[in-house]
Amino acid sequence: MSLGEFSLIQQFFSHTEAGHNPHKPVLDIGDDGAVLDIPAGYQLVQTIDTLISGRHFPEDTAPGDIGYKAVAVNVSDLVAMAADPAWFVLSLSLPHSDAPWLKAFSSGLFQAAEDYAIRLVGGDTCKGPLSITIQASGLVPNDQFVSRQGAAIGDRIFVSGELGAAALALAALQDRVNLSSTQLKSCLSALNRPRPQLELIPLLRAFASAAIDISDGLSADLGHILEQSGVGARLIKQQLPVSPWIEQQDRYDLALNGGDDYRVVFTVNPAKMESMMHRADQAGINLTEIGEITARDFILIDGDQSLPAHSKGYDHFV
Amino acid sequence: MSLGEFSLIQQFFSHTEAGHNPHKPVLDIGDDGAVLDIPAGYQLVQTIDTLISGRHFPEDTAPGDIGYKAVAVNVSDLVAMAADPAWFVLSLSLPHSDAPWLKAFSSGLFQAAEDYAIRLVGGDTCKGPLSITIQASGLVPNDQFVSRQGAAIGDRIFVSGELGAAALALAALQDRVNLSSTQLKSCLSALNRPRPQLELIPLLRAFASAAIDISDGLSADLGHILEQSGVGARLIKQQLPVSPWIEQQDRYDLALNGGDDYRVVFTVNPAKMESMMHRADQAGINLTEIGEITARDFILIDGDQSLPAHSKGYDHFV
Repeated sequence: MSLGEFSLIQQFFSHTEAGHNPHKPVLDIGDDGAVLDIPAGYQLVQTIDTLISGRHFPEDTAPGDIGYKAVAVNVSDLVAMAADPAWFVLSLSLPHSDAPWLKAFSSGLFQAAEDYAIRLVGGDTCKGPLSITIQASGLVPNDQFVSRQGAAIGDRIFVSGELGAAALALAALQDRVNLSSTQLKSCLSALNRPRPQLELIPLLRAFASAAIDISDGLSADLGHILEQSGVGARLIKQQLPVSPWIEQQDRYDLALNGGDDYRVVFTVNPAKMESMMHRADQAGINLTEIGEITARDFILIDGDQSLPAHSKGYDHFV
Repeated sequence: MSLGEFSLIQQFFSHTEAGHNPHKPVLDIGDDGAVLDIPAGYQLVQTIDTLISGRHFPEDTAPGDIGYKAVAVNVSDLVAMAADPAWFVLSLSLPHSDAPWLKAFSSGLFQAAEDYAIRLVGGDTCKGPLSITIQASGLVPNDQFVSRQGAAIGDRIFVSGELGAAALALAALQDRVNLSSTQLKSCLSALNRPRPQLELIPLLRAFASAAIDISDGLSADLGHILEQSGVGARLIKQQLPVSPWIEQQDRYDLALNGGDDYRVVFTVNPAKMESMMHRADQAGINLTEIGEITARDFILIDGDQSLPAHSKGYDHFV
C-alpha cells in the first residue's frame, strides 16, 4: 500500500501524549516547524542520533524495537548532560510505505516517548534506505548541565547499571558465543530496548564533575572525557559491573569495547562521594566505582598487571 | 583514506563562525549535546529535513551544492515561520570516509551557514547510504510566529521571488526539455543553491496571516494552508511569477507542481496590503499577488477557464 507523507504523519505520528511531560508545544506537528516555550531559568540541550539498518541494529530487528531504541539512544545523551527530556523531532527514511511496519515502529517510538516523558513535535518522512534520525531537546536549570570537560585528578569514576549485555547479545546473534535462551533473552532486551535512567539526572547535577553516555564502549567514551578534561585514568577490570557470564568467561572486552550500553560513566570529587552514595541508595540507583582519574595515561588494572586501556572503540567509519 | 568519527568532526566541522549570528552556544560541538541560551521574550522554532542522494538531489550533484542546499532548505522552513535562524545540528551518513568530498561538502555547508547566520552546534556521522539530515532551530519574539492556520476569506495570496526554476533545471537535466546554456545555468543555481530570503522575516511577522515555504510545489503547499485554515483559494495562472521561458512555453505546471522552489507563499488581509507593499518596496523585496482566499474549493483561473487546482504535488512515498 502507498501512503502519502501527510497521511502517514497523521495516521501514525499524531500521538500527543508523552507520559508526564509538562512541556506542551505552542505549535505542534503539521507546520513548517514546531514552536516551543523555554521556561525561564532553563537552558536548552540538543542532541541528534541516526540509526541505520544493518549498522546500528540487525536488519531483522522488530520495528517496535527500532522505534523504541531510536528515542532511547537520544534520551541517553540528554541524561548524560543532566538535562530533562522535553521534545523530539523525527526524520524517517523508509524503502516503501508499509502500514504494518509503521504501526509497530510508531508504537515502540511512543512507548519510549511515554517511558521518558519526551514529546514528538515534528518530523519528516521520505523514501530511501531504512534510516531513523532523531533530534532530541532537553532542559536543564541554568549552568547545571554536565559536560565531558570537568574531570579532575583524584576524582572517582562511576558507572550506572551493568555493562556488556548489548554487545553479548550481538555476539550471540552473530554466533560468536553460545548463550542459554534465558541469558539471550535478557541480553537482547539490553540491545533492543536500552533503558536510559532519568533518575540519574538530579544525581549528576548535584555530584558529577564530568559525564558521558556509553554508546561506543566504556574505553572509547571514557577516553573522550579524558581527552576533553586533559587527564588520565586507572580502571580496575575486576570492578566493572558485568553479568556472571562475562565474569566467568573473562570476556571483559565486551564491557570495555562492546558499545551500545547507554549507561552513563561519570566522575565525582571524592569529598562528595559519601553524600552521593547516600542519595543513590535512597533513590534505588545502582552505581559502581570502577577507577580513578589520574594525571595522564589510560590504564587498565587486571589483577597485578597494568595494561594500556584501548580507547578506540567502535569507529563509525572504519 | 579512513577517518574516524571524531577526527572527521574536528577536521571538517569545527568551524565556529556563522555570519552575524549573535547566538554563541554555551557548549558547542564535541559533547553529548549542545547547550543553548534562549533569549528572554523569544520562542524556539524547530524544523528537520533530510536530503537523500538520487531523491532530493541528482546523484552527481557537487558536494558543495549538497552541503549548501541541506542548510538552505531548513532555513527556508524557519523563514516561513518568521523565525530568525539561530543554530543547526547535522547528521551525515556517507558510504565511505572521503576527505576531498567532505572538504567540498563542509565548505558549501558553512557558506550557507554564513549566508543565513546560522551556527552548527552539533552532529553525528556514520557509514551508510549518502543522506544528510539537518535539524535547524530559530528564534521568534513571543507569539509573532506565522503558521499555516491563519488564512481568512478575502485575504490576498502572495509569493516571494520566481517559481518553477528548480523544476525546469531538473527537467533539463533529465532531457525532458531543451534549454540554452545561459538558461540552464540560471535554473541550476535555483536547483542547487536555493536562496531563502531572511529579509522576508520582519514582513511576515508584521503582515502575514498564514505562510508556508514551497518545497513540494505551489499547489501542494498552498493546499496545506487551505486545509489547516479551513478555506479555499482562487489562483490566477497568468499572475504566477515565472521566467519568460515558462510563460512562452506555457509550462506553468513547473511553477504549480514542480517543487524545490524554497520561496514563501503567504496570505495577507487586504487592509494591510498597501503598507506591506510599501515596506517590501523599501526593502527591495519582490512580491507578487497571485490570488485570493475563498470560502471553499481550490481553483486555478486560466484565462476564462476555471480549473480544479491539483494539490497533490510531490509525494515522498509515491
